[in-house]
Amino acid sequence: MRKNPQIVVIGGGTGTFVVLSGLKKYFSNLTAIVSMADSGGCNRMIRDELGLLPTSDIRQCFVALASGSSETERIMRDLFIYRFTKGNGLTGMTFGNLFMAALSGILGSQKKAIEKTGQVLRINGKVVPVTLDDADLVAKYENGEITKGEHYIDEPPSKHNSKLAITDLWLEPKAKANKDALDEIKKADLIIMGPGDLYTSVLANCLVKNIPSAIKKSKAKLVYVVNLMTKYGQTYGYSAQNHLSEFKKYTGRWPDFALINSKKISPQIEKKYWRQEKSAPVKDDLENKNYTVIRKDFLSSIVYKKNKADILKRSLIRHNSQKLAKAIVSLLK
Amino acid sequence: MRKNPQIVVIGGGTGTFVVLSGLKKYFSNLTAIVSMADSGGCNRMIRDELGLLPTSDIRQCFVALASGSSETERIMRDLFIYRFTKGNGLTGMTFGNLFMAALSGILGSQKKAIEKTGQVLRINGKVVPVTLDDADLVAKYENGEITKGEHYIDEPPSKHNSKLAITDLWLEPKAKANKDALDEIKKADLIIMGPGDLYTSVLANCLVKNIPSAIKKSKAKLVYVVNLMTKYGQTYGYSAQNHLSEFKKYTGRWPDFALINSKKISPQIEKKYWRQEKSAPVKDDLENKNYTVIRKDFLSSIVYKKNKADILKRSLIRHNSQKLAKAIVSLLK
Repeated sequence: MRKNPQIVVIGGGTGTFVVLSGLKKYFSNLTAIVSMADSGGCNRMIRDELGLLPTSDIRQCFVALASGSSETERIMRDLFIYRFTKGNGLTGMTFGNLFMAALSGILGSQKKAIEKTGQVLRINGKVVPVTLDDADLVAKYENGEITKGEHYIDEPPSKHNSKLAITDLWLEPKAKANKDALDEIKKADLIIMGPGDLYTSVLANCLVKNIPSAIKKSKAKLVYVVNLMTKYGQTYGYSAQNHLSEFKKYTGRWPDFALINSKKISPQIEKKYWRQEKSAPVKDDLENKNYTVIRKDFLSSIVYKKNKADILKRSLIRHNSQKLAKAIVSLLK
Repeated sequence: MRKNPQIVVIGGGTGTFVVLSGLKKYFSNLTAIVSMADSGGCNRMIRDELGLLPTSDIRQCFVALASGSSETERIMRDLFIYRFTKGNGLTGMTFGNLFMAALSGILGSQKKAIEKTGQVLRINGKVVPVTLDDADLVAKYENGEITKGEHYIDEPPSKHNSKLAITDLWLEPKAKANKDALDEIKKADLIIMGPGDLYTSVLANCLVKNIPSAIKKSKAKLVYVVNLMTKYGQTYGYSAQNHLSEFKKYTGRWPDFALINSKKISPQIEKKYWRQEKSAPVKDDLENKNYTVIRKDFLSSIVYKKNKADILKRSLIRHNSQKLAKAIVSLLK
């Protein structure tokens, strides 16, 4: 392993949180590159009312990387997770997003506010927005239907047929890459994509101008962590190979390694998922052809529950951060 | 001077902020005892929507006492002052109040949240709520009219005759003292009352059960800082002696020292105050009878402006914190 390998995790949301939380025990200079196209939940207010870029995914990365080594730092981390459960216009808002919004107001720059937030939380690494441009995610489905707005793609309205595949995805207006993100990808020894919502978290990063070419050109080992479950409205019926093909389509590159969970999900959980969300375990149809397949038990034994103030759906089952981190670290040897 | 004199500042609002800011350069163990009857501005949401005690006055004391010795602490102090200027239900809210509200949610206790906030900001001293009971301030005017709610007493509705004197003031329901506040008064070597709105900031503390008797029994030197200006709706036409008589009425004790500004307020500022707020300089009719009068230039040369997001009126002219502190310190010798 190189002495200080540069590890870049690209994504956003809970999946990236899990990867960072695990890797943090091994490395103190992790970089998270985060999608900025969110429009759901707390982000709606951040974007529409405060006129700022959405910071929910950034917030999760900060929490994952927060040092928590002093009591004050632990309090700050707990506050960043906290979601208000009362108050008109406040319910559902996270403290972390309000913190960054207030700091943007003081510093007159959201970019600087994000950097300073990292200092206050004494994070082990960097959290880098993939772009600093305000853009909306747009999806085109196989029937020609077009939906604009990350939130509507993530949780489509009931009239939408959520079994339809997304055939095209882009940003409106076009967004240019944050120079820091390009620099981090260039320096990387290892890039980790996913897990996370394929279109709204993972690939949303790959729509930003110059990001796909930077990923393609990078000499870093590229690891793709395959999702545990399909997502109704985004990846209904998708196999593991479908996920990787989509990644190849938007970046022009196969990953070097595909990490996929081999532990069977309990039938009760599987049933519950299907009943509640029409989600099923992602079928493992991967072959050691374009990439090396790493099959292991990556499953967390904890079943997560929805927070009462949470206005977005969250995964009930997740990857185990330690198991993932161990497998990723071994790739650097 | 005793080695570590116990200094207790009783009040709330800008006046207390000014006193603490000045004294902080001399002492590292200041105690601010703060009125909890606020209902205006940001406090309305804190009370009515979040179901918490109002924390705006506490917030100002935290800002005054924040160490600001590291960059993180300076950022936190700046954030505590920050007031949101956008967002439905967020405009006018201060970050500091949201911080304490979120922390109350995490810790399940607002008292603990206030204590922890002091730790995070590394304050030089303590900020102690005078009571932890939820109570409203009620005023009775000389014509028999009764008004409930600090906000309505502070800024009466237009139909109210704001020249009327307040003949009685109480809390509904009755509030019992925070034990910590009683302990601090008991230990005090010096107690400073005011400056600040006579009824809604200073005397509001003296309505809490056992606080007046604690002040009366205290062996501390008691300093009363007389306001610079009268306040239409509260102290229209009040002389300095009127202020001190009211203090005596609610506590049963005269102060040992009355500090009063002797520097003439500029005629332009005086006119502006009269035109905008029907406020006039407090007439100095004090005599060295029941207390020692200390007349000095206590005036700040800075004229403060209203913040654009500020939903409450603030003083244009203030006491100079350094001049006040110097005079107070000399009383300990």
